[in-house]
Amino acid sequence: MFSQTTEYALRAAVRLAEAGERSLTTAEIAGDTKVPAGYLSKVLQQLTRAGLVRAVRGLRGGYRLSGPPDSITVLDVVNAVEPMRRILHCPLGRTEHTTLCPLHRQLDDAVAQVEAQLQDKTLADLLTGPRETDSVSTVPGLTTQPTCLGLGAPGTDG
Amino acid sequence: MFSQTTEYALRAAVRLAEAGERSLTTAEIAGDTKVPAGYLSKVLQQLTRAGLVRAVRGLRGGYRLSGPPDSITVLDVVNAVEPMRRILHCPLGRTEHTTLCPLHRQLDDAVAQVEAQLQDKTLADLLTGPRETDSVSTVPGLTTQPTCLGLGAPGTDG
Repeated sequence: MFSQTTEYALRAAVRLAEAGERSLTTAEIAGDTKVPAGYLSKVLQQLTRAGLVRAVRGLRGGYRLSGPPDSITVLDVVNAVEPMRRILHCPLGRTEHTTLCPLHRQLDDAVAQVEAQLQDKTLADLLTGPRETDSVSTVPGLTTQPTCLGLGAPGTDG
Repeated sequence: MFSQTTEYALRAAVRLAEAGERSLTTAEIAGDTKVPAGYLSKVLQQLTRAGLVRAVRGLRGGYRLSGPPDSITVLDVVNAVEPMRRILHCPLGRTEHTTLCPLHRQLDDAVAQVEAQLQDKTLADLLTGPRETDSVSTVPGLTTQPTCLGLGAPGTDG
């Protein structure tokens, strides 16, 4: 139901949300999210074009979210790479159909339901641990994250 | 969210549900559903392989549903061509993750929700008019169907 591209974009977005203020290079994100670097590079470009991510130049450059994780919904990320398409008109182009037939009504209902569900969650909701910039980096253990994106030390997350 | 193949399979299934006991040729279904005949032919093979449709040989041969429309769910048709995939394990293969992370929990919830919705509807639910074999064919108007699959005479459906 969700494409590979969508899955990869969400992994990257969650990883960047975890990193907080810190920029991450494509190589870092690729390693943590297990997304092939070339594929990831294109996905990051799409997220940048959509205004969700921004490229940071310089020695400590890379990518970071363009806003706080609670300002970006899961739907924003999905729509940046593979927009959810509502069925607004008869896909068969029947002009006499001013309303959708039962089949397309049913399919559109399903899309609407998912759209609402994804809009209801922000990237912040997908972080169950502290963000890296929230934690005291000298205290071991505090920077681990319970996501599956390569951040939690094995065995330390639930 | 739903692929072209899924859309075409559903159009064909609804068209066959409307036809009831009558077999339809690939050309007839293609014309009514506006699906390219070559593409439709492959879709019908997938539906046949899944046991939802059967090929009828002979002069009045073609395709028909293998059971009554109320015995086939929308999910059956979707799964016959592009199975809904639940997320049961960490897609990153992290063995230390015995439960899904919040991201994949969220995505799986969306898939589960759609799955339940599509399982709750049968092809019969998508037919708002009488089936062709239910109607008296000598009475004009009774065979029109309010779907968008080319069956309703223009202007006669809601």
